Formats: sequence, C-alpha cells, structure tokens
Amino acid sequence: MRERGAARQPTRPRKSPPVDRACAITGAEASLAIIVYRLPWTWKCSKLLMKSIHAGLNAVAAILAIISLVAVFDFHNARNIPNMYSLHSWVGLTAVILYILQLLLGFFVFLLPWAPLSLRALLMPIHVYSGLLIFGTVIATVLMGVTEKLIFALKNPAYSTFPPEGVFTNTLGLLILVFGALIFWIVTRPQWKRPKEPNSVLLQPNGGAPEGMEGSMAMNFGNMDKSDSELNSEAAARKRNITLDEAGQRSTM
Amino acid sequence: MRERGAARQPTRPRKSPPVDRACAITGAEASLAIIVYRLPWTWKCSKLLMKSIHAGLNAVAAILAIISLVAVFDFHNARNIPNMYSLHSWVGLTAVILYILQLLLGFFVFLLPWAPLSLRALLMPIHVYSGLLIFGTVIATVLMGVTEKLIFALKNPAYSTFPPEGVFTNTLGLLILVFGALIFWIVTRPQWKRPKEPNSVLLQPNGGAPEGMEGSMAMNFGNMDKSDSELNSEAAARKRNITLDEAGQRSTM
Repeated sequence: MRERGAARQPTRPRKSPPVDRACAITGAEASLAIIVYRLPWTWKCSKLLMKSIHAGLNAVAAILAIISLVAVFDFHNARNIPNMYSLHSWVGLTAVILYILQLLLGFFVFLLPWAPLSLRALLMPIHVYSGLLIFGTVIATVLMGVTEKLIFALKNPAYSTFPPEGVFTNTLGLLILVFGALIFWIVTRPQWKRPKEPNSVLLQPNGGAPEGMEGSMAMNFGNMDKSDSELNSEAAARKRNITLDEAGQRSTM
Repeated sequence: MRERGAARQPTRPRKSPPVDRACAITGAEASLAIIVYRLPWTWKCSKLLMKSIHAGLNAVAAILAIISLVAVFDFHNARNIPNMYSLHSWVGLTAVILYILQLLLGFFVFLLPWAPLSLRALLMPIHVYSGLLIFGTVIATVLMGVTEKLIFALKNPAYSTFPPEGVFTNTLGLLILVFGALIFWIVTRPQWKRPKEPNSVLLQPNGGAPEGMEGSMAMNFGNMDKSDSELNSEAAARKRNITLDEAGQRSTM
C-alpha cells in the first residue's frame, strides 16, 4: 500500500516509516485491551477500574490507528502514490472504521451508566464477537501489508531469491500470526476468565453489566441463561437504588 | 506466489489457474465441516453420522488442499518461479500441515472408538481452538494470495490505477472476509449449538465423546464442569457395556 512497484528504484528496502511503528504499538495496545480482564493478578481490582483500563487502552490504540492512517495518506500523497487501491487498504480501512464504531458502542453502552440492561444484554455478545473479529481482521491486514511491502521493496536482490530481508520479514509475519494465536488462546481459556464475585450485584450500582456478561472476551455463550438471571437480579438491585462506591469496596491496582 | 512480477509480461491477468478453484472448493468444504453440527435440521441425525460427515468433509478438503499444493509447485517449476519464498507460501503451507495434523488427531482420537475419555477431554478444547485458528489462518492466506496475484498480474493498466479487475478482486477479497466472519458468527451462537440429548450417554456405546464435549465448534468453555460430569457418566455407562446401536435409535438424514 505504501509504494508502487513500477515507480520506485530497485534498491534495498528503506527503513520502515513511522506508520509501521505506530501500527505495531496500536496492535500491542489493542491486544492488551482484549486480554486485560484475563490477567489473574487483576481479578482483585474493581470491575469499573478494569473496564476503564479496557476502554482507555482501546481509545489510545484507536487514536494511534487514526494517526497511522493520516500518515499513510500523507506518505502516499507526498510520493504521488494513489490511495485506497489495494485489498490491504480496503480491509485495513474497514477494520479501523469497525474498531472506532466498536469503541463508541463500548463507551456509550457499557462504560457510561445510562444504557438499559436489556440493551447491554443484547449488545454484549456482538461486542465480544466483533472485538475478536476486528482483531483477526487486523492480523490479516498486517500480513497483507507485509506481503505488499516485501514485493514492492525487495527488487535487487528480488524477494523471490530469498534475500535475508525477505526471510527475516517472513519470519516476522509468522510471529505476528503466532502472537494473534496466543491472544486468541488466552481469551478462550476458561481458567483465565475473570471470576464472578458473589456480591457483584451490590458492587455495580452505577450501571455496570454483570460479570458474566462483560467480564472477558471469552465466548462462553453457554452461560446465557445464568447471565439473564443475573441481569434480572441486578435490575432489582438498581430499583432499590443501592449506591455503594464500587471502587472503594475493593483494592485497586 | 504464482508469478514473479519481474519475469512476466505487462498484460491483462491470465485466467485463474485450476489451483484457485481447488482452493475455493477446499475452503467451502472445510467451512461446511466446521458448521455441520450447527445446522438445526441435522440435530435429529445421530451423533456418529454427524461426526462422520464432519470428518469426511474435512478429509476431502484436505485432499483437495494437497492437490492444490502439488499444482502450485508444478506451476512454479514449469515457469521457473522459485517455490516457498513468499509469506503467503509460508503461512499457507503451515496452515495445510496443521490442517492435516488436525484431521489425523480428530480421526484417531474422536472418530475411532479406542481413545480413552480422559484423552478426548484433554484434546477437545485444543481441537476446537485449532480448528478455528486454522480456518482464520486460511482466510489470511487467501487474502495474501489475492494481494500477491493482483500486484503481479495487474501491470497494464496497473493495480494502482483502479482497473476493473482490481476493484472486482478487492471486492472478492472483502466477500471472503465476510464469509469467514459469518462462519465465525455461526459457530459462536448458543442458539445454533447442537442440543444435548437426555439419553446421550446410552446412545454413545462406541466411544463417542459426550455432546457437550464435541457437538460443535462453539466455544462454550463455561460448561466444562458439566462436561466433566458427563464424561464420568459416560465412563460409567461404558463400564456397564451398553451396546445399543446408535444409528438405529434415531432418524438419519
């Protein structure tokens, strides 16, 4: 996406532009945001704190993603490279747009206290699904970007002659895939799921969804009935206007 | 992966070689195999029949994948294009090797009746995880392959000038991604999970794993305790040497 093969010199690949580093930081932040509920040493922290960290990491990652996109367009315009012609760019822009929508949905529905519980219950499975889908899509986008970059940049010696840069970057691509697989493994292990607290109903006076609904990216959809009953319990608790300060009830990080 | 840009004529892209069609059929078969437990009209079919269909579809898909790989190497050799230099080829070959290992594991552990239940219980979460991981990896491989092909094939007019072939194939890439997202959605919806039968213990005399362990690609890991108890129940049933003919108990397709 960055360079047009026909227009550039057959030289060794240039240094990776800042956009690649911004993308890498974006990916690392978003990955940490995905698994943040699943770090056992955070289980003693309050749910509201963990939700804020999850939202904060994703917000920073989204800002970096937007900065990266602006840098890509600037880079293209400065070199007279057309924008948005490649599959990498189509899939990547789609992923960033979906990521921003996901962030807004999470902020307004799950972090702010005003969304009704029925809406949270409806949207949580979609939030979990689309979070992992966007993550997978970003991994695919990265691999397409690496492929493009290698084809455009490695001309002399050519990519097909196994130059060290090619082998090194292919290995990097495989490691990115392994990284994605590890994140996917972590979010689907039952033993790393943030445990439900027995008094979680009382500890969520400000609109937090029940632990079973929102506590992790795990796809334990088999627990839906249980979550529904918890939702009802929480609805009853909210009607009684219990207003404990969640953060004050438990230790923080 | 199929052609080296420097070595080919700047013409309109050639017709897609047979390998692309074989890959498409492979992907469709493997996708159907993933969701085959989740088609509600199959829930009345016996578990053994569904396992056999799942294994059969995957076996045919694996054979097609191997034929595709042979065709790719033949194509490269016939045109003096180096093999296995691209990230697409590294990730793709890794996926095919993992797929064959997955198929062998599934056949020997879950389809044949001799594996102990403890081994099935240990390997089922890994089987489910790696099945979806391989599927996602294959989608990424396809997108990288499409990216390579467009860069290599579209020279006059260039890919970066938005020729109809480029826009069409980018759209195809997006549709492949949407297809993957749909499969991922189907395997993670609780309402499409094959229901447990109340007499499932009696109906699995030939070593079938319990429904909760193996009935779908759903990642409802929250049910592990229940599955464990079912495993124990089944172990007890097997000790009593109950030998009902599963296929005869229910209607088939």
